[in-house]
Amino acid sequence: MSRLLLATLLALIPGVSPARAAADGVAAPPLLGFGSEHAAAQRDLESRFDAALDPANLETWMRRLAARPHHVGSAWGEENAEFMAGLFRSWGYATRIETFDVLFPTPKLRRLELVAPTTFRAALAEPALAADATSSQTDEQLPIYNAYSVDGDVTAELVYVNYGVPEDYDELARHGIDVAGKIVLARYGKAWRGIKPKVAAEKGAIGCLIFSDPAEDGYRQGDVYPRGGYRNETGAQRGSVADMPLYPGDPLTPGRGATADARRLPVGEALTLTKIPVLPISYADARPLLEALGGPVASPEWRGALPLTYHLGPGPAKVHLQLAFDWKLAQARDVIAVLPGRELPDQWIVRGNHHDAWVNGASDPVSGMVALLEEARAVAARIREGWRPRRTIVYAAWDAEEPGLIGSTEWAETHADELRAKAVAYINSDSNGAGFLDLAGSHSLEPFLNQIAADVPDPVQGMPVGKRLRSRILVQGSEAERARARENRDLPLAALGSGSDYSPFLQHLGIASLNLGFGGEGDYGQYHSIYDSIDHYVRFMDPGFRYGIALARVAGRATLRLAEADVLPVEPGRLVETLGTYADEVKKLADTLRETTAETNRRIDDGDYVAAADPKTKLKPPRREEPVPHLNFAPLDNAIDRLRAAVAAFEEARTAARAADGALPAVTAAALDTALAGLERAMTGPEGLPGRTWYTHLVYAPGSYTGYGVKTLPAVRETIEARRWSEIDGAVTLTVSALERLAKQIERGTSALGPPK
Amino acid sequence: MSRLLLATLLALIPGVSPARAAADGVAAPPLLGFGSEHAAAQRDLESRFDAALDPANLETWMRRLAARPHHVGSAWGEENAEFMAGLFRSWGYATRIETFDVLFPTPKLRRLELVAPTTFRAALAEPALAADATSSQTDEQLPIYNAYSVDGDVTAELVYVNYGVPEDYDELARHGIDVAGKIVLARYGKAWRGIKPKVAAEKGAIGCLIFSDPAEDGYRQGDVYPRGGYRNETGAQRGSVADMPLYPGDPLTPGRGATADARRLPVGEALTLTKIPVLPISYADARPLLEALGGPVASPEWRGALPLTYHLGPGPAKVHLQLAFDWKLAQARDVIAVLPGRELPDQWIVRGNHHDAWVNGASDPVSGMVALLEEARAVAARIREGWRPRRTIVYAAWDAEEPGLIGSTEWAETHADELRAKAVAYINSDSNGAGFLDLAGSHSLEPFLNQIAADVPDPVQGMPVGKRLRSRILVQGSEAERARARENRDLPLAALGSGSDYSPFLQHLGIASLNLGFGGEGDYGQYHSIYDSIDHYVRFMDPGFRYGIALARVAGRATLRLAEADVLPVEPGRLVETLGTYADEVKKLADTLRETTAETNRRIDDGDYVAAADPKTKLKPPRREEPVPHLNFAPLDNAIDRLRAAVAAFEEARTAARAADGALPAVTAAALDTALAGLERAMTGPEGLPGRTWYTHLVYAPGSYTGYGVKTLPAVRETIEARRWSEIDGAVTLTVSALERLAKQIERGTSALGPPK
Repeated sequence: MSRLLLATLLALIPGVSPARAAADGVAAPPLLGFGSEHAAAQRDLESRFDAALDPANLETWMRRLAARPHHVGSAWGEENAEFMAGLFRSWGYATRIETFDVLFPTPKLRRLELVAPTTFRAALAEPALAADATSSQTDEQLPIYNAYSVDGDVTAELVYVNYGVPEDYDELARHGIDVAGKIVLARYGKAWRGIKPKVAAEKGAIGCLIFSDPAEDGYRQGDVYPRGGYRNETGAQRGSVADMPLYPGDPLTPGRGATADARRLPVGEALTLTKIPVLPISYADARPLLEALGGPVASPEWRGALPLTYHLGPGPAKVHLQLAFDWKLAQARDVIAVLPGRELPDQWIVRGNHHDAWVNGASDPVSGMVALLEEARAVAARIREGWRPRRTIVYAAWDAEEPGLIGSTEWAETHADELRAKAVAYINSDSNGAGFLDLAGSHSLEPFLNQIAADVPDPVQGMPVGKRLRSRILVQGSEAERARARENRDLPLAALGSGSDYSPFLQHLGIASLNLGFGGEGDYGQYHSIYDSIDHYVRFMDPGFRYGIALARVAGRATLRLAEADVLPVEPGRLVETLGTYADEVKKLADTLRETTAETNRRIDDGDYVAAADPKTKLKPPRREEPVPHLNFAPLDNAIDRLRAAVAAFEEARTAARAADGALPAVTAAALDTALAGLERAMTGPEGLPGRTWYTHLVYAPGSYTGYGVKTLPAVRETIEARRWSEIDGAVTLTVSALERLAKQIERGTSALGPPK
Repeated sequence: MSRLLLATLLALIPGVSPARAAADGVAAPPLLGFGSEHAAAQRDLESRFDAALDPANLETWMRRLAARPHHVGSAWGEENAEFMAGLFRSWGYATRIETFDVLFPTPKLRRLELVAPTTFRAALAEPALAADATSSQTDEQLPIYNAYSVDGDVTAELVYVNYGVPEDYDELARHGIDVAGKIVLARYGKAWRGIKPKVAAEKGAIGCLIFSDPAEDGYRQGDVYPRGGYRNETGAQRGSVADMPLYPGDPLTPGRGATADARRLPVGEALTLTKIPVLPISYADARPLLEALGGPVASPEWRGALPLTYHLGPGPAKVHLQLAFDWKLAQARDVIAVLPGRELPDQWIVRGNHHDAWVNGASDPVSGMVALLEEARAVAARIREGWRPRRTIVYAAWDAEEPGLIGSTEWAETHADELRAKAVAYINSDSNGAGFLDLAGSHSLEPFLNQIAADVPDPVQGMPVGKRLRSRILVQGSEAERARARENRDLPLAALGSGSDYSPFLQHLGIASLNLGFGGEGDYGQYHSIYDSIDHYVRFMDPGFRYGIALARVAGRATLRLAEADVLPVEPGRLVETLGTYADEVKKLADTLRETTAETNRRIDDGDYVAAADPKTKLKPPRREEPVPHLNFAPLDNAIDRLRAAVAAFEEARTAARAADGALPAVTAAALDTALAGLERAMTGPEGLPGRTWYTHLVYAPGSYTGYGVKTLPAVRETIEARRWSEIDGAVTLTVSALERLAKQIERGTSALGPPK
């Protein structure tokens, strides 16, 4: 066996990582999905692509795109869309701007006052800073607000609810505190912001304030702007609070594109608006409110970094919150730039980043947008060398991501049938900064992304970005993570929840997706404020745009390899391996819940909570829960077994079908390719998730009460977490159906490979 | 077998706790060390003792003792000693005041200034508060200072060193920061305060400031004084910084009593004074210093709760620290009150609490002192009923504990020979508050103290204080602690380090000791400030003195049972069981150190630390350490085996020697008693610990770099921690000698029990 063949085979065996192969002293393996000869040509293509990348373009375009505020519907947003369309056209892409008319409320009136026991009027404003040139563009800046809050005018006692997630209300109940009829004050963090007013309303609150605590987002993290880049006391976090875990996109057109002639819900019937008025505030505005609170002292985990003792209330602090919005439609402009495939024009690789911002948005989203533009320019430059991609490449600059992934969602909904038929992968990026590559996406792409991470060097330190990630795990990881890293196995991909434009592609349409970006080493305190500016970005995020170029290299490789591969570099083996760990997790979740429930009930019965509590606090025992029954996970186990068998047969057939150089016969490759293109979609079901049918993926979804955070095997996991025992068999059955479809799809791939030799 | 006999036997079998026996449905067991008949009389005695306790006395005496500042050598300290001596005499105790002349420096000059980049003069003062009547007694208050700081006048750049323990300097080294020639700013916490200037000086610093951070000691803990009881921004923590882990007591008379005619070291030769000037400051005084620091941002664990970004320096903050002290001798007055034993006058139970304070000291020490006084009064009241204790009871009110356990240490050193011959137990208390009983002391007394904790009810909740502790473990404990609690085994005693007057008895003389007190539910922010007042105490610590009475009940029972028992209730089995866990711990410590050292060195070699670090921070890899050799623990294992065999033989012999009612024949009991009285002392050795010969106990010692925190098997443990591999065999040999003496002593007990029947 030649060294080359050995390397080829190693690279094609799931579970043997490039890093492991390299560690074994074998020459660098060829590329997943490529035969040796094609791999060499691909490497050459990528070298030329790399050489074309120029950080000066990123800075030039960032200065252009972030020059003025450019939220959806703004004058500068429209100018930016036209500007980018012009660039794409100039590079040779078939380019169009697709428009959608979407609900986008902006404030007419915002008032927040402390009315008792002392008085204070919140500033609700971020002042211009001499050190930040664009911070003075007050005429075009959106004020501090949360989009899709309802109008309201409420006055009530205040209650501090920590992060405002469900378990925080369990603790409040132990203190005898009910938020019904109150206004809650929650701090940003832990869950996506839209969860906070959603839970508050479910608990009966009549208003919700969300503040940035300096513990997570201010001086405790580092020097504040403009001395450093962290959030100063006047900075506040704008953002959408629509019920995105129900459905993202335009609240008025769920499941269908918000085209000019679309059927629209009346605003009053849109399900994703909040039920209560909600407003984000700075820590300067939050401090007098917290200082005015009485009641029990918050537990240690609830205390932030303001220089005061955090109390829970209710009262004596009483606040008046008044909000009124202009409930208008705005026009979202998606820029779509297409490079048709030379061999497989009906297989699309979609690569997107949004272009709208809350204000100037140098970091969010312009840093990712300019990396995508430079990537698209360097890809297009290959056309002049006579190159065309095998598959079609679609570059997209989405509008209206900030209010709720609207530009991408409306486009995906509008073109749903065509995308289901043609799109084989979606590659997303968003804000980008200095530091470490985030590895996140569909697990069938885990070996593929690891190979890219092994190829692209860190722009500052020089070693591959994958090696750098491995070092971080070895230095900072948990014991389990370190053990895995020491085995030189592939780095794990994080499963995708939500928070950027991959959601409609992955979770609504079932298209394998990646979300790429660098981060972790910037002073990230500008998020959704007027200080997310070019001045901030070049000082505190990615001076010299070196990580912008690194993102272009990573995402460009992903795009080019997916577009060029002989067979899509999708690995069912790694996907099924991961599904097995998820199945184990949900079983363990039920077991742990059963044990902790029994233990909690026993402590309640034995009086331990009362005995352990300081009598002064009058802390009550936790709520008694029904014992957790034993659940029937046998169908899930059987489905995993079937998947493992399907993978084993697939891999045996693939090995048998390969020629000596590792390549498959062209006819076989084409048939396999078709089967693999449908792998991710097999995990979706038209019935969707229980209670939220827009989400059709039975493996990945954002949590109903996390928002950003993923719930894998969501139907099963959330049913257990919610203790809805009567619904668990249905959730298992639903999930198992998807896993059985996946097994069938893998078996189609095996059939495509022909009978074993 | 009668139920009574069964209960008797169960109670006398080590490892079967009273709680377990009760859980098995057996009647309440008699008392450890008592036959059934004597046990009933003892219970009757204790009932009468309980009935005599009156919380009004505690409040009356606290108002008297804490009425004015009463540090050692003060006018009110002398009045208090005379007052208490008068009380003891009036109750029938043979009472005397023993005096010692001890070094007690007080400030002549204190100056702390920020001199660059801005200027600021520290206030170094706690203002009087209208809500606190004694806070205005400025004429008699000791100013804010650390006793036994040397004089000094230094100006240098400032470096923030977190808690100022050795590992903090390891982290500073990773930032390239050397404190040589600098002044360090450390926060209180983690280790005893005296460790901070000691380590700073070892690292070359020329001055040391210690501040109370509101994270641990201020508004982050709760509302500050006078709204709540936590430390306000002007409060500062006085305290000794003598090198107590080297030796406590008068710095000029190490190892000998500081009597009027004692040989004294010149002040300049006293080994326990600091090497550099050191001053404690409030967080109001610390804030401008921290705000003026530049250099790297401190890591998250280093950040406190002041509203600023914590930087490390060095500089640009530059400070001037000037300190001058009056190096005078002060007279310490120990009140000694004796009730001679009726049968065994040469077996002494010593029960002490200190009476000196830093200022008014309502909590520290008066709360514990008044509980002792009430206990002594209620014990003495039994004399009028014709009762006398079997053994001698010695009540002691120590002076000069605050500057370094001086009153107790000088007394113990003065009477060392007599105490070694006669003292069979020392029972200490100090500050007392509301909440949970601290279980701490010699492990041979673990079953004994558990029995008391099962007998004394929590004064608020009514269940036994032991049951309440068990509930707290079940609700808040670690998994291992909860598992142990679920097995209904005895609650574990914490091993004693240092910080109160038990040290000379336990660790210098080898007398079995307990340290008792309640706490955990007060607003404990008054420590060593002028606000440790009667006004603070009755609002925030123990309103109604209910836990003061509970302390009297616990400590009074311990005193009375030890004084009355037929056989000392000392259990070699529990001690040896605990020693086995300590031996396992030091072996595991070496193994863990070997593994982590190898892993760290591998990461250094592989470049992982450099790769994982943010290049902006210029963080260096940790220091490379030599690989940890495999160590010879066989002698330790052999010693533990021998101890276990000795215990098995002892318990077999004791069971055989018992009559049907569980009692031993009188002659046997007396012989066994003598053997058990020497159990603790067997663990001491005249050669002392390596480098600090004052500490003779080979099982319990305060850590050289923790101060308060205990190091069990200290010679072995600290040699491993310091990586002094050439000294480890010597440390093991030294420790094994003590364990072999202990085994011999247990074998003496077995011999006393006579041949097996």
